Amino acid sequence: MKQYVFGADIGGTTVKLGCFTVEGELLDKWEITTRKEEDGRFILPDVAESIQAKIAERSLDRETIAGVGIGVPGPVKDDGTVTGCVNLGWGEVNVETEAEKLLGLPVKVGNDANMASLGEMWQGGGKGFQSIVMVTLGTGVGGGIIINGKMVSGTNGAGGEIGHICVDDSETETCGCGNKGCLEQYCSATGIVRMAGKELENTDAPSSLREIPGVSARDVFDAAKQGDALALSLVEKHGKILGRALAGIACVCDPEAFVIGGGVSRAGDILLSTLAKYYRQHAFHACKNTVFTLASLGNDAGIYGCAAAILTK
Amino acid sequence: MKQYVFGADIGGTTVKLGCFTVEGELLDKWEITTRKEEDGRFILPDVAESIQAKIAERSLDRETIAGVGIGVPGPVKDDGTVTGCVNLGWGEVNVETEAEKLLGLPVKVGNDANMASLGEMWQGGGKGFQSIVMVTLGTGVGGGIIINGKMVSGTNGAGGEIGHICVDDSETETCGCGNKGCLEQYCSATGIVRMAGKELENTDAPSSLREIPGVSARDVFDAAKQGDALALSLVEKHGKILGRALAGIACVCDPEAFVIGGGVSRAGDILLSTLAKYYRQHAFHACKNTVFTLASLGNDAGIYGCAAAILTK
Repeated sequence: MKQYVFGADIGGTTVKLGCFTVEGELLDKWEITTRKEEDGRFILPDVAESIQAKIAERSLDRETIAGVGIGVPGPVKDDGTVTGCVNLGWGEVNVETEAEKLLGLPVKVGNDANMASLGEMWQGGGKGFQSIVMVTLGTGVGGGIIINGKMVSGTNGAGGEIGHICVDDSETETCGCGNKGCLEQYCSATGIVRMAGKELENTDAPSSLREIPGVSARDVFDAAKQGDALALSLVEKHGKILGRALAGIACVCDPEAFVIGGGVSRAGDILLSTLAKYYRQHAFHACKNTVFTLASLGNDAGIYGCAAAILTK
Repeated sequence: MKQYVFGADIGGTTVKLGCFTVEGELLDKWEITTRKEEDGRFILPDVAESIQAKIAERSLDRETIAGVGIGVPGPVKDDGTVTGCVNLGWGEVNVETEAEKLLGLPVKVGNDANMASLGEMWQGGGKGFQSIVMVTLGTGVGGGIIINGKMVSGTNGAGGEIGHICVDDSETETCGCGNKGCLEQYCSATGIVRMAGKELENTDAPSSLREIPGVSARDVFDAAKQGDALALSLVEKHGKILGRALAGIACVCDPEAFVIGGGVSRAGDILLSTLAKYYRQHAFHACKNTVFTLASLGNDAGIYGCAAAILTK
């Protein structure tokens, strides 16, 4: 009888770890440093050692452990192969096989954004749904597609890379990915700041934002909540671009819900209602009533999802 | 030991039926009329009777029959519920349950476009792949998404409704779905004719198309193959709009291949190479090498897919 499951969410600076019951209760969470030296060769052994130590500390019977889910900041194929992860110094490696050898437990590896989506569906904003699209509005725009409980990792590990859908063919600035007009150039925190900068520069509309040095995405939403007209127009523009893109995504995989997370999602209702308004304007008639909800696990979504990945492996 | 499987592709005028070996050989195909009178109440009994007659005619042992797949021209939920099918006169009905009662055999029901995609993956242009996006360029633009061998029907049966992705926010004409700027307004046969009409009216560029009364999509591609500059520019525009949309779809589900079918796909290489060129321009770096291939089963794709749906049920 399996009672426990571990999650390890590997980031460029730290690895977040969690020990859960199979019912989804977080019993313990901790962090270790991500040692990136020597092409990241110490990362997986460090993770394994830390989990073995936790098993010993809590005197867990190994037979009761369902396994260890691992999230990686890069594309991961269905068989657990990471095709290259610049942030960790890794080349092509089958992390699943390697980690199973080190741990002696079942391992499931996935892209960190996809893992966070699984976490939100297991115990967060998407709880109760079986098919969701998670939209993470942070420095970039990440995504995770889950259909009937299964992650869509994609042939090249690019499933859910929704931040790189082209939404404006006439864009002249280049996205981090090398293309032009990507969703994330407008709808990420960075994108909102970029749009605000242009608007402030190209118009002389009065705005409280003009008094703030180094305007942030949060400043824009805060000013909009205060009724600032220029900030409100930026929030509308953001909702319009993102809502229309999500309507397009619904024509592909028609999820039960969109779960909106990442730092920008802290703006809350004003973001969600604007977004949903434009989504419903553009959505195919059968999909007009798709649910919009906020992510609720914050930075823990990754470890939750890693644990959930083992339970749905 | 299951040896045989049936497919029934219900259309607005006729029902196409096929008897296959489980290995994918088409043993027999035939058609019956779709009787739409009295809210289409005779359609399923007619299908069942026709299949029972074929079983008797070929003296098949019922134990050797894997089941009957049924394709329906409307949205179908995962549990086999059709939420309403105007073309057949049906309201909400669980076709799977109804047909199983009538047939005494396992039944799997799906949307006809999705079924055609499964067929192309089983024995057609997508053979050998496990994850494809089928793009059907006919009167409209249909689609079918298959991930790891499973159809993505969607929460509201709208999975694969890629013809209604908004590709031009500034469009003033309305699509059949009620929205504006849908992919199918440009890239279907009808859409190509519409674009050609505008181009011929709004410019005075010389073109062999000007001599053809009632220009068809085929005329446009034929003229382009002959080097007609205006027709070539239309083929480029078509490939650009569709290629960019498919690049967006790859950011969602990252398939192994795009399989292009429908009447417009008879244009062949000129269509596929133009489309692939613009796809690669817009695709996320990890997905640049997605395969483009032509559908090969024509009007039989539906019955093949219905049969395949039973084998992957």
